[in-house]
Amino acid sequence: MRRLVPLTEEETAYFISLMEYRSLKKFDKLVRYGEVCQHVCYISKGLIRYAHESDGKEYTHRFFKENEWVGNYVSFLDRTPSAYFLEALEDTDLLQVSYEKVQKAYDKFKVFERFGRRMAETLFTDLVQRTTDAARKSPELRYIELEHRDPELLARVPLKYIASMLGIEPGSLSRIRKRIQK
Amino acid sequence: MRRLVPLTEEETAYFISLMEYRSLKKFDKLVRYGEVCQHVCYISKGLIRYAHESDGKEYTHRFFKENEWVGNYVSFLDRTPSAYFLEALEDTDLLQVSYEKVQKAYDKFKVFERFGRRMAETLFTDLVQRTTDAARKSPELRYIELEHRDPELLARVPLKYIASMLGIEPGSLSRIRKRIQK
Repeated sequence: MRRLVPLTEEETAYFISLMEYRSLKKFDKLVRYGEVCQHVCYISKGLIRYAHESDGKEYTHRFFKENEWVGNYVSFLDRTPSAYFLEALEDTDLLQVSYEKVQKAYDKFKVFERFGRRMAETLFTDLVQRTTDAARKSPELRYIELEHRDPELLARVPLKYIASMLGIEPGSLSRIRKRIQK
Repeated sequence: MRRLVPLTEEETAYFISLMEYRSLKKFDKLVRYGEVCQHVCYISKGLIRYAHESDGKEYTHRFFKENEWVGNYVSFLDRTPSAYFLEALEDTDLLQVSYEKVQKAYDKFKVFERFGRRMAETLFTDLVQRTTDAARKSPELRYIELEHRDPELLARVPLKYIASMLGIEPGSLSRIRKRIQK
């Protein structure tokens, strides 16, 4: 959190007191499709896939790993059923804060309002970047950029999910990878 | 603003003192491609198109009209060149607030932090909704929903821009409109 806002010891201790520990086994769902997302979660260890299913096919959109916040923030904010599911791809440890406790934190200290603002701003700018990239860049370029930005993620995630995130078939991704290796 | 947060007279007066009046003629740019967006603007009258150009072709993404906030918020927040342009489709009157003044407002009153948070949250949830719709709904269904939600907008915007926003050619949109009329 201190990357987004400076926190005093008191503010830090208060926020930590709001958090609950939760662990997921590989393939456990953090949020099910159709369920209201009740928590924002900080991943201390592990990997989460954010995806949806349509006509019997899964579409993967992104991944969240250790030291990142995760949840379906739209469902969390609007208290509406999640149009996506979130699934652990590895055994995962989280610290979660409920919707009600987040609202209390906003009321108690101004710094959490700023944190919440920066969090929402970051989510918004990231999503614009990703939709802009998806519209303007080829799957090959997006794969190369991902490999450059986060090679470790590629080693941890089954390639079928990477292909899905790039909007291509696994066979196309294999051909892209072979071309790059040459 | 009072739809997002309750404001006292003092807070309201302070925020109004930060605002400057600006007017645009039809086809004037509010933000040019490649320019850093310096203001968030409240539209008191008029209509703005948010679009980008690629390979000599324009792609329209959305519209902003009276009683809405407008700007390239990514460029505004990150102080980066705008990857989009914003153009008046009608003579437009705005009240604008500069980046520096927005930061001052955040420091001065907690309520503006909350306003900024709710603004970013709304932008985020709206964008998720629009990208989800674009991925899962047909152009025809999206057109029908738009007609239902905002028939007046359809009367004000040239159809080529509506077609572009739906990701289809103007001819396809004409056929959709004829089918619906039957």
